[in-house]
Amino acid sequence: MPQAPRAPFGEIVQLLSVLPAGDEAAVEFVRARDARLTKPRGSLGALEGLVEFLARWQGNGEPTLDNPMVAIFAGNHGVTDQGVSAYPRDVTAQMVKNFTVGGAAISQICALHELNLRVFELALELPTGDITLEPALDDRMCAATIAYGMEAIAGRPDLLCIGEMGIGNTTIAAAINAALYGGSGADWVGPGTGLDDAGLAHKAAMVDRALALHRDHLVDPMAILARLGGREIAAMLGALIAARHQNIPVIVDGYVATAAASLAHAVNPDAIAHCIFAHVSGEPGHRRALDAMEVRPLLDLGMRLGEGSGAALAAVLAKTALHLHNRMATFEEAAVSDRES
Amino acid sequence: MPQAPRAPFGEIVQLLSVLPAGDEAAVEFVRARDARLTKPRGSLGALEGLVEFLARWQGNGEPTLDNPMVAIFAGNHGVTDQGVSAYPRDVTAQMVKNFTVGGAAISQICALHELNLRVFELALELPTGDITLEPALDDRMCAATIAYGMEAIAGRPDLLCIGEMGIGNTTIAAAINAALYGGSGADWVGPGTGLDDAGLAHKAAMVDRALALHRDHLVDPMAILARLGGREIAAMLGALIAARHQNIPVIVDGYVATAAASLAHAVNPDAIAHCIFAHVSGEPGHRRALDAMEVRPLLDLGMRLGEGSGAALAAVLAKTALHLHNRMATFEEAAVSDRES
Repeated sequence: MPQAPRAPFGEIVQLLSVLPAGDEAAVEFVRARDARLTKPRGSLGALEGLVEFLARWQGNGEPTLDNPMVAIFAGNHGVTDQGVSAYPRDVTAQMVKNFTVGGAAISQICALHELNLRVFELALELPTGDITLEPALDDRMCAATIAYGMEAIAGRPDLLCIGEMGIGNTTIAAAINAALYGGSGADWVGPGTGLDDAGLAHKAAMVDRALALHRDHLVDPMAILARLGGREIAAMLGALIAARHQNIPVIVDGYVATAAASLAHAVNPDAIAHCIFAHVSGEPGHRRALDAMEVRPLLDLGMRLGEGSGAALAAVLAKTALHLHNRMATFEEAAVSDRES
Repeated sequence: MPQAPRAPFGEIVQLLSVLPAGDEAAVEFVRARDARLTKPRGSLGALEGLVEFLARWQGNGEPTLDNPMVAIFAGNHGVTDQGVSAYPRDVTAQMVKNFTVGGAAISQICALHELNLRVFELALELPTGDITLEPALDDRMCAATIAYGMEAIAGRPDLLCIGEMGIGNTTIAAAINAALYGGSGADWVGPGTGLDDAGLAHKAAMVDRALALHRDHLVDPMAILARLGGREIAAMLGALIAARHQNIPVIVDGYVATAAASLAHAVNPDAIAHCIFAHVSGEPGHRRALDAMEVRPLLDLGMRLGEGSGAALAAVLAKTALHLHNRMATFEEAAVSDRES
């Protein structure tokens, strides 16, 4: 998509355009150890790929997972005034509280598997504009929210899982996907938290109304983001960008988090090279968005919860993979015969 | 497949034919709690299904995972005399030692995630007959090995993961699949521990030779097992049968473990209802075997290691799922608004 970076987005587009490459020497270092471990080469499949991924994007042949972080970005959406969700908007703030006191699924995944959980509230008391009537954000606020997302990961995690919470935000993600990839609302909406068929048709119609209203303004990815919005999507985009420039590998959660990656990808496909897509969600548009970027999800468990839950499960696989890489015996150590070749 | 249970298999076929049903009341108990947890219903996808699975087959509306067991059955195979594996036969015993001292992948998955690991050696010094020349086992030895597998799980695990180790045993599994489902060696063999194309063609030819030799004797699943063998496959079949009768849910590992399930399924499709198939392995015949039983694997990570590694990862998901079920807050506890319906 042609870029005409308007004032507030100039630096952001620059950061998406001039990117550090992965460290292939670190990957080779990992592969050399992997070849000595007591298993046939390649037999751990995607687990081996996860260790290589950590090495490549940490720039470290002995990658770590001492400080894995699940970051949840929470936002509210004016479009919920149109009745696009099965839950009331208040649930966003209620769930943020639930994350922090340990009652949510993501809280308990993180507790069980020793992942750090951080929740970033994005002006929940100020929902974005109702996209069926007006822009979600003005350009300046949109750019500021991306910048906020960049700073959110300042704790130097060695792995960043990106997730979100926001009643109504599958509607926003559907609108962004339609703007990026074409199609109408019906092609991109799904039941979200649990709409019936009538609710789904209404949701699709609201996406179509927003697309029609903003049609002449959806000229580049940053304009799409500002017009159709989602503060949490803007912040996730910022986090994803900052991670790349700070040698932090990223695991992207589900349908809404993937919309942030799609915006980065639309500016520059290489901008998501440091991202793994945790899973394909039960939200039907998710697989289409992943296919549009030609990326393959790690898991397919029919999950559609958001809040970073799929990304955290993928992080558990990454922790397991790295543990095996570091702790398995070599053929020499175990006195196991290597293959006859 | 018509059953004509010959003498040593009578009791085994009986145990595969008259089976306890799952406890649907326990499942309903789980669903009632699940509906109160702070998430949209169904949004944890397969994780919710795992908790229901544990409840159904433990017969307990409050299922436990206090004593999950990974059982590895290890056997040796005369067919390795035909050069069907990239590794020498000695590796089976060497890896058994490696399991117990903690150097293997499964050792470290179990250590990280607190799964109990038990290894059952099946007369490694006495490989089964070379199936290209003779039967793998006589009927009496085959039945005795099934019975041994039944007793192996006497420690009353609340979840049993079935895995195996045995140089040459993907050749055996391929032969069993061809006997059960039709097709030739080429339809069912794969690279195993790492054969090249010539090795693969030779492996397929050895399966075809075995199928031709035993053709007139492959009259029922027990005969197929005895003729084509694999002590570890016989023992896994026994463990799977005993688990059903002792209210122990089972997670089946990869290509070779699935062959044990296929034999049970061939006697009675309901005999594997208490089994989850952990993953589809990189061994190409695995998906075909799963499809033949119309079961869907939980994971698809391109793993092809055996030793229960895929089953253990699925057990980690089950542990996570049960932890969420038990520890997440309800809507009432968290003061989160339930859906507007």
